[in-house]
Amino acid sequence: MKKLLRGTGLFLVLSAFMGVSAAHAEVSEETAYILNTLLFLIGGFLVMWMAAGFCMLEAGLVRTKNVATMCLKNIGLFAIAGIMYWAIGYNLMYMDVTSYMGTFEWWTAGETAAAEAIDTSGGYASASDWFFQMVFVATAASIVSGTLAERIKLFPFFIFVVVLTGVIYPIQGSWEWGAGWLDQMDFSDFAGSTLVHSTGGWAALTGAILLGARKGKYAADGSVRPIPGSSLPLATLGTFILWLGWFGFNGASQLALGSAIDAVAVSQIFANTNMAAAGGVVAAILMTKLLYKKVDLTMALNGALAGLVSITAEPLTPTIGQAILIGGLGGVLVVLAVPLLDKLKIDDVVGAIPVHLVCGIWGTLAVPITNDAVPFMAQLTGVVAIGAFVSIASAVVWLVLKYTMGIRMSEEDEDRGSDLAELGLEAYPEFGHGSQKL
Amino acid sequence: MKKLLRGTGLFLVLSAFMGVSAAHAEVSEETAYILNTLLFLIGGFLVMWMAAGFCMLEAGLVRTKNVATMCLKNIGLFAIAGIMYWAIGYNLMYMDVTSYMGTFEWWTAGETAAAEAIDTSGGYASASDWFFQMVFVATAASIVSGTLAERIKLFPFFIFVVVLTGVIYPIQGSWEWGAGWLDQMDFSDFAGSTLVHSTGGWAALTGAILLGARKGKYAADGSVRPIPGSSLPLATLGTFILWLGWFGFNGASQLALGSAIDAVAVSQIFANTNMAAAGGVVAAILMTKLLYKKVDLTMALNGALAGLVSITAEPLTPTIGQAILIGGLGGVLVVLAVPLLDKLKIDDVVGAIPVHLVCGIWGTLAVPITNDAVPFMAQLTGVVAIGAFVSIASAVVWLVLKYTMGIRMSEEDEDRGSDLAELGLEAYPEFGHGSQKL
Amino acid sequence: MKKLLRGTGLFLVLSAFMGVSAAHAEVSEETAYILNTLLFLIGGFLVMWMAAGFCMLEAGLVRTKNVATMCLKNIGLFAIAGIMYWAIGYNLMYMDVTSYMGTFEWWTAGETAAAEAIDTSGGYASASDWFFQMVFVATAASIVSGTLAERIKLFPFFIFVVVLTGVIYPIQGSWEWGAGWLDQMDFSDFAGSTLVHSTGGWAALTGAILLGARKGKYAADGSVRPIPGSSLPLATLGTFILWLGWFGFNGASQLALGSAIDAVAVSQIFANTNMAAAGGVVAAILMTKLLYKKVDLTMALNGALAGLVSITAEPLTPTIGQAILIGGLGGVLVVLAVPLLDKLKIDDVVGAIPVHLVCGIWGTLAVPITNDAVPFMAQLTGVVAIGAFVSIASAVVWLVLKYTMGIRMSEEDEDRGSDLAELGLEAYPEFGHGSQKL
Repeated sequence: MKKLLRGTGLFLVLSAFMGVSAAHAEVSEETAYILNTLLFLIGGFLVMWMAAGFCMLEAGLVRTKNVATMCLKNIGLFAIAGIMYWAIGYNLMYMDVTSYMGTFEWWTAGETAAAEAIDTSGGYASASDWFFQMVFVATAASIVSGTLAERIKLFPFFIFVVVLTGVIYPIQGSWEWGAGWLDQMDFSDFAGSTLVHSTGGWAALTGAILLGARKGKYAADGSVRPIPGSSLPLATLGTFILWLGWFGFNGASQLALGSAIDAVAVSQIFANTNMAAAGGVVAAILMTKLLYKKVDLTMALNGALAGLVSITAEPLTPTIGQAILIGGLGGVLVVLAVPLLDKLKIDDVVGAIPVHLVCGIWGTLAVPITNDAVPFMAQLTGVVAIGAFVSIASAVVWLVLKYTMGIRMSEEDEDRGSDLAELGLEAYPEFGHGSQKL
Repeated sequence: MKKLLRGTGLFLVLSAFMGVSAAHAEVSEETAYILNTLLFLIGGFLVMWMAAGFCMLEAGLVRTKNVATMCLKNIGLFAIAGIMYWAIGYNLMYMDVTSYMGTFEWWTAGETAAAEAIDTSGGYASASDWFFQMVFVATAASIVSGTLAERIKLFPFFIFVVVLTGVIYPIQGSWEWGAGWLDQMDFSDFAGSTLVHSTGGWAALTGAILLGARKGKYAADGSVRPIPGSSLPLATLGTFILWLGWFGFNGASQLALGSAIDAVAVSQIFANTNMAAAGGVVAAILMTKLLYKKVDLTMALNGALAGLVSITAEPLTPTIGQAILIGGLGGVLVVLAVPLLDKLKIDDVVGAIPVHLVCGIWGTLAVPITNDAVPFMAQLTGVVAIGAFVSIASAVVWLVLKYTMGIRMSEEDEDRGSDLAELGLEAYPEFGHGSQKL
Repeated sequence: MKKLLRGTGLFLVLSAFMGVSAAHAEVSEETAYILNTLLFLIGGFLVMWMAAGFCMLEAGLVRTKNVATMCLKNIGLFAIAGIMYWAIGYNLMYMDVTSYMGTFEWWTAGETAAAEAIDTSGGYASASDWFFQMVFVATAASIVSGTLAERIKLFPFFIFVVVLTGVIYPIQGSWEWGAGWLDQMDFSDFAGSTLVHSTGGWAALTGAILLGARKGKYAADGSVRPIPGSSLPLATLGTFILWLGWFGFNGASQLALGSAIDAVAVSQIFANTNMAAAGGVVAAILMTKLLYKKVDLTMALNGALAGLVSITAEPLTPTIGQAILIGGLGGVLVVLAVPLLDKLKIDDVVGAIPVHLVCGIWGTLAVPITNDAVPFMAQLTGVVAIGAFVSIASAVVWLVLKYTMGIRMSEEDEDRGSDLAELGLEAYPEFGHGSQKL
């Protein structure tokens, strides 16, 4: 997802050197411009749809008394992410990156749609690129909301999203996709296992530690009380939505559709993305059956997401068989990481840290397995550097919020639920509340 | 969404006069034909998806005892809208518009897919255009179902939809998109703030007045009883679906993707559409927090929709900053209009009148702010003329229905709910009915 | 959906003979390659989305105590289908089909995305075609899960899916889309009324007979107890998802978008697909109103699906009016077939057999009505041959499973529900269980 057109750019460079351009010069520059733009638009609306996926997943995995707040957080963060990315994020990430970040300026489209001559040599409409990049930053923010559910206060959460999407995400993003220092050392993260998913994961992890677990989640005797989600079909729907959206997330990160090479690449990415998710599902089903005798639906859902996150750093170079294995190992990691977090008494309501952080790291480190051009040390450096930066920056923001307006709901509010406490309404006013004592 | 290809057409005209065609003549006529057609198809399936969005939004905002009927109305009206638009609506709207309407004829595709030579100079496949126009009329009908929920009888509603989609919508549509008299006075409504959303809103408002409020909604002492919806996550899902579909609604209303100019335009429209919705969400969240101390999720959802409706009349010429403001003001209007309607004792179950009618008017009147070519008086004329026509025509239909078959359920049926009364089933037979006394 | 490019291929052949190529030679080979590939990718993600549609439909139509299992089956089968189709299914269906099947080999992409010269004369990226074909086989498997819900054991079901998607579906598919013997006798099944939907239907029917009805469904006195589904809005959502996905299912089965002819064809297919569904909805609403005095929402939903299945064998040649009639008759058939199945004491939980099998047969036999090139006897032969093969093969697999690991849950497990029995959790732990005694 670098600003340089990965596909077409690569091709143009290579064709100039290798003299193969004749075979591929059949797509006119303007046609390529339209097709590249179309890829961003399709990819962009698919990734936008992922916001609904996170919302349904998280609404399904919290208790009824917190469902409406979960919905509000998800639609609110998506709106905030767009506004902040427009206000400063995009330019901070992509404009005049000298060393570690760009400029604090508003983004404006580089072309207008008037009848004046548009320079098609740029490769795509700049608004389409902005739209596509913007929905990515919203994804990173969506990851945070799930982990911290059921006990974080609403407005502190929104303020954190403001900083995350306006400043933290763009700065680390500039290091790689803004052609910054990580890019120069050949770090590679195709669609954002680290830049998007781990970034969200680190922010969530920091928040979860500072916020503490939900009341009653971890007993004094060390036992862990499972707190089941209110609607597993909604969680399943959310997972399917995310799976669908991921074709845009990974596929359009090829950044070009204006040549046959790009068309082949996007196709391979679609197939690999799907099969990594499939591998994650099957691995999680088999793992939970083996470990617990029963198959766990929420683990199967997280297995799908684990596979998707794992393949995101490199969805192009693996064969389908490799994609299944990469995704499948992601599914295994999630099944192992969930109880580990509970041992550490880190309360992650929806399992976002195992999925997005653990598998984000795994996917990033796995890139050199199938892509020879990427050195393992660069991957490790990127994982550590971005992890350190996002964790420290997030911790600073969380701590400032904690000691000013406070980030945690009162015990009483936590008991009656954030829907009544913060919104004054119920998500399901007519349905029974058999377990709302939970 | 005029039948004239706004994008390509404009370009061809301008390029002929200005001699800039050389720079843009790179897309062959047949390639442009395919790309234009593809835009209609993608836009069309996204707008079709909005039918599911309205269905989920409305099903989530009515009480459990009316949910199944809500679902039936939404899938039924979508089917009816398509059939009526094929039977007469499309030709009434677009064919041989002499003064105020076209002809009562069946629509048939202008090309066949056989191997005979297709005239690509038309710009796009006529069936793709029909498909795209057809899903728009369904949108207008969807708006009506929400407002009148929980007390209207099923078949009278369907009959109203027959007339609305077959006759009322197409006639007013012909005035502008059929190149009729409003178009000739430079009225402009890019994707239908007035032609689609206000039209649905006026029909809903007329129906709501003639139908009366739900039993118990307005007490004799002037107090208003809130009647909470049964499932806020479903309502949230519906809103996300509508947000997604709106990229097709506005984006494909550019009507062309066969040139770089069109690609730039569609991209700008995508970005503006998204950011207007974002502005609406943030405005509604802040407004409800300020006015009521608590944030109202359903207002945040309606804020998103308000932003989307507001930008629909002109999603191309605003900058992103302007789009945020136009959408944000839409969000403010909705928060103010909802209690106003209650003061007038007009019972709008889902808030469709504030969203689609009020913001439809606002968006239409706001066009001249960013588009110099559009005179304010033309906008005002269009709003008033279409409002008058749709209101009067709708009132006639509602009154005929009222005094023949009746439009309102019996009190007893309203009490036990339309699902048992009209369908003989329950939407959620196993869930508790804690508040079904509501 | 034959491997031969139906659209472009036909055009190339015809243009060579008829000398009309000049008019259409404007799209360069590489541009056509990209557009064909893009059609597969868009169609593919839409069909992938149908997996979510089946999941929501089925989750909404079973009782709460089986909802989580339904979700697990649907995400699990989608994962398994992809892996099996990659492992052997695709090559069995399309590679070296000599007489009745291909080879048991792993599928690998024919091109790589490296900068080497890609041969664009193939017409599309092979990974895009594989992706599109793969999501079809998942559809066939999805059909089975609904019929057998609420009493089949989880792992035997998954094993059946392994064989269905890896072996049974591909072998019968090779007969037609693999250019096998049915194709050579001019059997025609554009997007799979028989190859996909009836195949799933036969497998489901065989399973339903061998598995037996749910406990208490059919009383000894011959009476049938209706067992209502847990969430009709979820079922409605599922239907809308399937409707949306069907544009990809039928539209991309044109297999090409690289010429104006193809663009016209895909457009006609979109319009016809939509209108057949509309016809099915209206027919089912009117039929249930006439027969039972009340409109049945689940019948309206099944009417939509019936219309979609009915048009799938030939969505291109009908006019829109014919499409409405073909789909409408499908809706009538479903309303009649559901009680007929109950008379035969075949317990089909979601109505998949009437929708996919009965209408699959109807749609296939109806092809000659609008397509002169297709002999009725070939259609009948295909329906019978594929029906016989799938039924026998499925019966063998079901019987082996029955007499080894068993396919039916214990009575006790059926009573408490598969969610507690197989997964150890509840889909809606906090909602009332008013009717869970059902």
